[in-house]
Amino acid sequence: MSPIPEEARSILICRERNFLMIAHRARTDDQFNINDLCGSAGRLDGVLRAINSALFLSHGMRRDTSFHALLLGPPDPPKLLSVDGLTVRYLNPDERSTAALVKRAMSLQLSTVIGSNVRSTPGIIVMRIDLVSILDTLQGPVYLLDEGGDDIMDAMIEGPLPALDSPTYFLLSDDRDLTPEESGEIARKANRVISISPKVLHADHSITILHNFLDRSTGSKCPKG
Amino acid sequence: MSPIPEEARSILICRERNFLMIAHRARTDDQFNINDLCGSAGRLDGVLRAINSALFLSHGMRRDTSFHALLLGPPDPPKLLSVDGLTVRYLNPDERSTAALVKRAMSLQLSTVIGSNVRSTPGIIVMRIDLVSILDTLQGPVYLLDEGGDDIMDAMIEGPLPALDSPTYFLLSDDRDLTPEESGEIARKANRVISISPKVLHADHSITILHNFLDRSTGSKCPKG
Repeated sequence: MSPIPEEARSILICRERNFLMIAHRARTDDQFNINDLCGSAGRLDGVLRAINSALFLSHGMRRDTSFHALLLGPPDPPKLLSVDGLTVRYLNPDERSTAALVKRAMSLQLSTVIGSNVRSTPGIIVMRIDLVSILDTLQGPVYLLDEGGDDIMDAMIEGPLPALDSPTYFLLSDDRDLTPEESGEIARKANRVISISPKVLHADHSITILHNFLDRSTGSKCPKG
Repeated sequence: MSPIPEEARSILICRERNFLMIAHRARTDDQFNINDLCGSAGRLDGVLRAINSALFLSHGMRRDTSFHALLLGPPDPPKLLSVDGLTVRYLNPDERSTAALVKRAMSLQLSTVIGSNVRSTPGIIVMRIDLVSILDTLQGPVYLLDEGGDDIMDAMIEGPLPALDSPTYFLLSDDRDLTPEESGEIARKANRVISISPKVLHADHSITILHNFLDRSTGSKCPKG
């Protein structure tokens, strides 16, 4: 059974495509300078770019997608930052304005009870939860994105990759490798490890490419101009 | 014959993969605030994200790639901003630090003579050139990325997409459609119009996906972990 309330679980798996990025150093309070994200925020800049890749289309949002970052930096880890593509507002593609939204969310008081959460601006929630509790909560296919995995094109030839009629979870790390403990916990839960490129890429680029493969397996082609 | 000196031409097609983004509103001087890129720089933020997508791998640069943005905003268009993956230095993935490099490049005096150019920090050059002169200068395959084009997977099944043993050019627009005049000029030169997604995407996401298809057609798969 899920160790957290159903309401908190619904934040974790609310859309068809759900991303979880493990941000090993990202700060867990609002004491960072949005004009110095690389230096003061534990590489929160990478999380901001991943939010962009997960949620933006050219003229709108990916309403079928939610993005989550498990922030593990000081001073108050772990915290899950969730951005829901269906309900989010005030989100723009640039890093700095997204940083301002995250800073506001991180300023909110949060209990130490697992599953407790606070809503910030619409579609942005911060939750107290650790990786093991997240994994115990997920129901449905879980894929780890890692350069050592099976190539996504090979996987998709064998059949539709995720069960896209049900919520699916895609896990990936930031610029640091998963720790042995994290790898072990994820291996216990993940259905498959998938590689999306012959190169080693930044997390945001990996998300963009994964979306493209999912779009190709489910989306209708635009009318030709 | 090329209407510009060979030295200037070598800036335009210096790598195997060369991107040209037409940035219709991006400012052509340094009078913008790197803390307010969306408001003050004519959506230069989109150009900065495209630089990131074109040039960054997880642990290094794409040395086989150059990125160019044709800046057409006030007060002194047209100017070509070129960033060369092989020689660029001081480039980081975040938008703000890249904006600082671009601001420095845009502060340099530039003659009105077509083909004249100035070097800023290593690997970053600003050139006076217009779209027609660029197109007249290019030799080798030219592809326009547009949602109305042939799907890239169909195109690659028919054969290797670009002649990857020679410099290849990929053109794309920013968040605005090409003007009829631009479309006409590009149609005169482009070998093919290619779509990389069933969705309409931001330019930076399109570049990331295109790279992935090229990496798959040319790159060796990473050893499995």
